[in-house]
Amino acid sequence: MPIEWQRLYAHRAAGMRASDIREILKVTAQPDIISLAGGLPAPELFPVDEYRRAFEWVLESDGAVALQYGPSEGYRPLRTYLARRLSGFGIQCTADDILITNGSQQALDLIGKILLDPGDAVMLEKPTYLGALQAFNQYQASYALVPMDDDGMQVDQAERLLAESAATGRRIKFIYAIPNFQNPTGRSLSLARRRQLVDLAAHYGVPIVEDDPYGELRYEGEHLPSLKSLDPSGCVIYLGTFSKILAPGLRLGWAVASPAAMEVLLHGKQPADLHTGMIQQMATCEVTRQDGFVEGRVERIKAFYKERRDAMLQALDEHFPMEAHFTRPAGGMFVWAELPTDVDTRELLVEAVQQKVAFVPGQGFHLDNSGANTMRLNFSNVPPDQIREGVRRLGTAIQRRLRGQAAETRATV
Amino acid sequence: MPIEWQRLYAHRAAGMRASDIREILKVTAQPDIISLAGGLPAPELFPVDEYRRAFEWVLESDGAVALQYGPSEGYRPLRTYLARRLSGFGIQCTADDILITNGSQQALDLIGKILLDPGDAVMLEKPTYLGALQAFNQYQASYALVPMDDDGMQVDQAERLLAESAATGRRIKFIYAIPNFQNPTGRSLSLARRRQLVDLAAHYGVPIVEDDPYGELRYEGEHLPSLKSLDPSGCVIYLGTFSKILAPGLRLGWAVASPAAMEVLLHGKQPADLHTGMIQQMATCEVTRQDGFVEGRVERIKAFYKERRDAMLQALDEHFPMEAHFTRPAGGMFVWAELPTDVDTRELLVEAVQQKVAFVPGQGFHLDNSGANTMRLNFSNVPPDQIREGVRRLGTAIQRRLRGQAAETRATV
Repeated sequence: MPIEWQRLYAHRAAGMRASDIREILKVTAQPDIISLAGGLPAPELFPVDEYRRAFEWVLESDGAVALQYGPSEGYRPLRTYLARRLSGFGIQCTADDILITNGSQQALDLIGKILLDPGDAVMLEKPTYLGALQAFNQYQASYALVPMDDDGMQVDQAERLLAESAATGRRIKFIYAIPNFQNPTGRSLSLARRRQLVDLAAHYGVPIVEDDPYGELRYEGEHLPSLKSLDPSGCVIYLGTFSKILAPGLRLGWAVASPAAMEVLLHGKQPADLHTGMIQQMATCEVTRQDGFVEGRVERIKAFYKERRDAMLQALDEHFPMEAHFTRPAGGMFVWAELPTDVDTRELLVEAVQQKVAFVPGQGFHLDNSGANTMRLNFSNVPPDQIREGVRRLGTAIQRRLRGQAAETRATV
Repeated sequence: MPIEWQRLYAHRAAGMRASDIREILKVTAQPDIISLAGGLPAPELFPVDEYRRAFEWVLESDGAVALQYGPSEGYRPLRTYLARRLSGFGIQCTADDILITNGSQQALDLIGKILLDPGDAVMLEKPTYLGALQAFNQYQASYALVPMDDDGMQVDQAERLLAESAATGRRIKFIYAIPNFQNPTGRSLSLARRRQLVDLAAHYGVPIVEDDPYGELRYEGEHLPSLKSLDPSGCVIYLGTFSKILAPGLRLGWAVASPAAMEVLLHGKQPADLHTGMIQQMATCEVTRQDGFVEGRVERIKAFYKERRDAMLQALDEHFPMEAHFTRPAGGMFVWAELPTDVDTRELLVEAVQQKVAFVPGQGFHLDNSGANTMRLNFSNVPPDQIREGVRRLGTAIQRRLRGQAAETRATV
């Protein structure tokens, strides 16, 4: 009998499918397309020389350790470095509170694995990060969606949903939030709402998973404290990553959690892959040892991305129609645009690709089929002149659609 | 309300706990203990210089790619290399049939994730690899245990269980097998049984997951074809790893599967960690480019481990009591011993550690509480003189227990 794979898959496999973004990225990877679709850091800023020296040093001085199996928790000196660094951001923790993961994505997978039974709900910002949805979908999550405004997640709405959940018995297992320069919107949660959200979580006994890949990439305004740093009760699991401040190709992230949560995260990490590769942890630790290097690198990235963000916002002001709204993110890698409601951005994408420019249509970030007129624009991985040209082409395509629709309306009337 | 983590965990978390071996290894990591407990390759044989040059080359020539996000499938030139190499072992495949994973362990996790609903059964050799049990336990697997003899899994028994399963509707989702120099027993599946098992799988439409970390480490006798190479129907998912032939600290393994299975494995890989780190894939690809290097390295490892295996078998002949049985593996990293049934190896371990020698008690590999008198002994990571001394001390401890029990019996009588 041939293997009937479709009949063998677990129920959870039904929720697992290729990321829409990855499919779009394949189409738009042609070199003559200006892609505002991706979410990649600028490779110009990768510390290539520093890593070259670091790998060399690690292999010369400690090759047998670097190439051997290592602890599931991660390389201790790297965890010690992270604990010290995070304390500088007000997150009081020790190496014991830190688990090294293969990027934040693995932490999202582990959290879904240890917390989600089929049907359990996750509270999410709407729209939110697709990778988180992919991770939670695997465990057959349901979702409680909280709308956003320019101050981020509307925490009053979150409170209403938590109260309902407590009353109806529908279990909200955790709140997933990206408080800084959120993917996809670029919005940040205001300080008042941060305090409110942490209080809420403690009040209802519902943990928060704080995903903070972009927190250090602030181009203006004051640093806002992380939820974790406002959390005396240990209800926040904080996720960080080297992907946006050093390089993503190493796949190095970390989770900070209270001991009770850490123990079970670790029980999820072991069967997942035993441990994260030693050599990339040791080389990264070596890179961080150079006094002030990471801080200097972050400053360079900020100056570099700020120029690109400014170019994008200026071009949007110039080329997008008056009826379009877009965020003015104070940091991160993305701008979010809302077009007039009669523009479907998936249809727009087809036309845009003909004009050799790409973006990510926003509906997939929403979960409730809303957002058909929204789009995500990346500025971190595109030079300013290309950003200007790309936005100009997009503006033209949008105008054409709006005029076309106007003409159609006239024709119909 | 404080977070009541215990109440939040998913049902599957109940099946997730720290590996017993890891706990034992912590105790026995003291430098004055001769540890036959681990399962580590010998670090003396890691290609440290080659990796130093490879990382340098990759970062010099292609740093922006090595440090950037990469494809979920893995680095294509590495997959192409593997496809060519595997074809040399009779496994006909192309790069498209190969998924790069973080060691084989991640492949086991992905397979559990895509195939196992709670209660679904996995057919296993008894005893089997603990990491596989950990991976499948996460997905609340049940097990159908197939006893082994010196020719490996008793495939007649496997057939009986499959026939029962087909009759009773208890779903056996896949067969997990380590045909070469199995962990923990060191046993290999005979050629006749390999053919029989593949036929069986095709007949019942039940896939085989063939885990082959040790297949190349054969110290005598003829290479036996892998199940995958005997499988015309695509029912075998083959798992390989660089951990035992180059180095484990990079966490690089691979899965070979037919297109239908590959698609869903990939859907499991993306949310797990987006992709395996680019730089370690590119550096490994560079190491493999040196003509004949991997083959030469495998030859060195074989000569090195053969000496250690011989030292262990000789010492076991000399120091273990006549009533003890042990395997004489033709390859791999482990010898398996069965002591007289009245010796509990967990109790023996306490005494052994006092005598500064450690091993892994075998009961944990069994799942049905049998095997209390069994033990796993590793020879790959211990120099021959230490092996001899360690086995001598173990022999003494066993003799003392046997004499003690004899004395006790006399006293009782």
